[in-house]
Amino acid sequence: MNADRPETTIDAFHRGKFWLVQPARGAHRAGLDTMLLAAAVPGDFPGVVADFGAGAGAAGLAVVARCAKARTLLVERSPEMVEYARSGLALEENVAIADRASVIEADVTAPAAGRMAAGLSDNCADFIIMNPPFNDESDRATTGALKRQAHVMDTELWERWLRTAAALARPKAGLALIARPASLPEILPALKGRFGAAQLISVHPREDRAAIRVIVRAWYGARGKLSVVPPLVVHGPSGNRFTARTDDLCNGAASLFGD
Amino acid sequence: MNADRPETTIDAFHRGKFWLVQPARGAHRAGLDTMLLAAAVPGDFPGVVADFGAGAGAAGLAVVARCAKARTLLVERSPEMVEYARSGLALEENVAIADRASVIEADVTAPAAGRMAAGLSDNCADFIIMNPPFNDESDRATTGALKRQAHVMDTELWERWLRTAAALARPKAGLALIARPASLPEILPALKGRFGAAQLISVHPREDRAAIRVIVRAWYGARGKLSVVPPLVVHGPSGNRFTARTDDLCNGAASLFGD
Repeated sequence: MNADRPETTIDAFHRGKFWLVQPARGAHRAGLDTMLLAAAVPGDFPGVVADFGAGAGAAGLAVVARCAKARTLLVERSPEMVEYARSGLALEENVAIADRASVIEADVTAPAAGRMAAGLSDNCADFIIMNPPFNDESDRATTGALKRQAHVMDTELWERWLRTAAALARPKAGLALIARPASLPEILPALKGRFGAAQLISVHPREDRAAIRVIVRAWYGARGKLSVVPPLVVHGPSGNRFTARTDDLCNGAASLFGD
Repeated sequence: MNADRPETTIDAFHRGKFWLVQPARGAHRAGLDTMLLAAAVPGDFPGVVADFGAGAGAAGLAVVARCAKARTLLVERSPEMVEYARSGLALEENVAIADRASVIEADVTAPAAGRMAAGLSDNCADFIIMNPPFNDESDRATTGALKRQAHVMDTELWERWLRTAAALARPKAGLALIARPASLPEILPALKGRFGAAQLISVHPREDRAAIRVIVRAWYGARGKLSVVPPLVVHGPSGNRFTARTDDLCNGAASLFGD
């Protein structure tokens, strides 16, 4: 229905189980990060999954496409991306999942009153997934001053997003986030007193290369300690094909933590 | 020379390149942790390596046995363990390395004046390695109250040990520590503003098991971000033999970060 809109594509995910209307180019397009984040939700998860910074809805829709009893709240502050998400939900191809998804235009970092006015109540989520916009690569070319500012932003970003996640979390709610490894010194302290029993998995482009991403999953109010589980390797030793495990995770055929 | 002392053993390391006098039993005996920590120092490292919490001297001696130009300061607060370290250095078997090692009886967490009085000056080390005593498994059987206390201790322990490491570090000095994964939320923030360009490696007993230890290496005053490098797997899929890489690391035939 939006094929005539410039700069827009309609793309199949999970081998056609759901579709997205997306900008044709740019950092907002869903990719590997989004699919891996969605795969952190356990299989057959039956609750409400809030997708913070949902963009066109890829992660939240990947969860409801894989988990038949899950519902998702796609939380996005950009009116343009909210429009993409709504267009996606209106696609005929998504009729099997659209009634388990809703879109909320809200800023995750807004004060509680603003969030509630936007329709995002406290204590509403059984799982929160987040792929904050700082994860894009736009700071690569920045100057020293901007990098220092970005570092400050990073610290506050994780604190703010995780504070809101804790406010929305129902008892024992899950949390999953995807981030650069460099953000771990900000993320791990911000979990403290909120989400425990954290599991960390690093994502390596190849077996012998440093991680490009980390995914952390934790549980609201849990008291267990951090564990580091075996890493995910995206590609085999040569070529650009995904490993079988990565392919399964990207297509909704497996969950990241094996549950 | 101490073979007649009860409860003592004399053990070969690095296929006989150096020897230790150790208590026959208990958490102070050197093992895999100690050898992996020593392996975090680059090959042929030419400077002074301070070994915090050195015990009988295993990690520091492993460094000087592997790096022909390195010297080590074995820093240990327990008079009993200091005696073991001194006995080890006096062994004929260690004549090739003993002149590059010295023992300092000092508490790493003591105020600067106390450390200096014990002979541990600021700005004296080109590399600091640490395997804090909290890493032993003694808290497994503790009660809730003791566990909470242990958690507080853990927070302060890393902050104190890393503060002292920063005080002793010469410009661009290296740092390596081995810890439980659960300590990462304490360790990573305590590095900030002191040691940068950190590399994190997780140590897994088998390929499909959660990590039992993490090793972090970083550099004083460096500004680079944290990276997560591919993990170390200790054992093959079955049996108790070390993987070839682990065996090399334990025997001084390789360095953990490949440098």
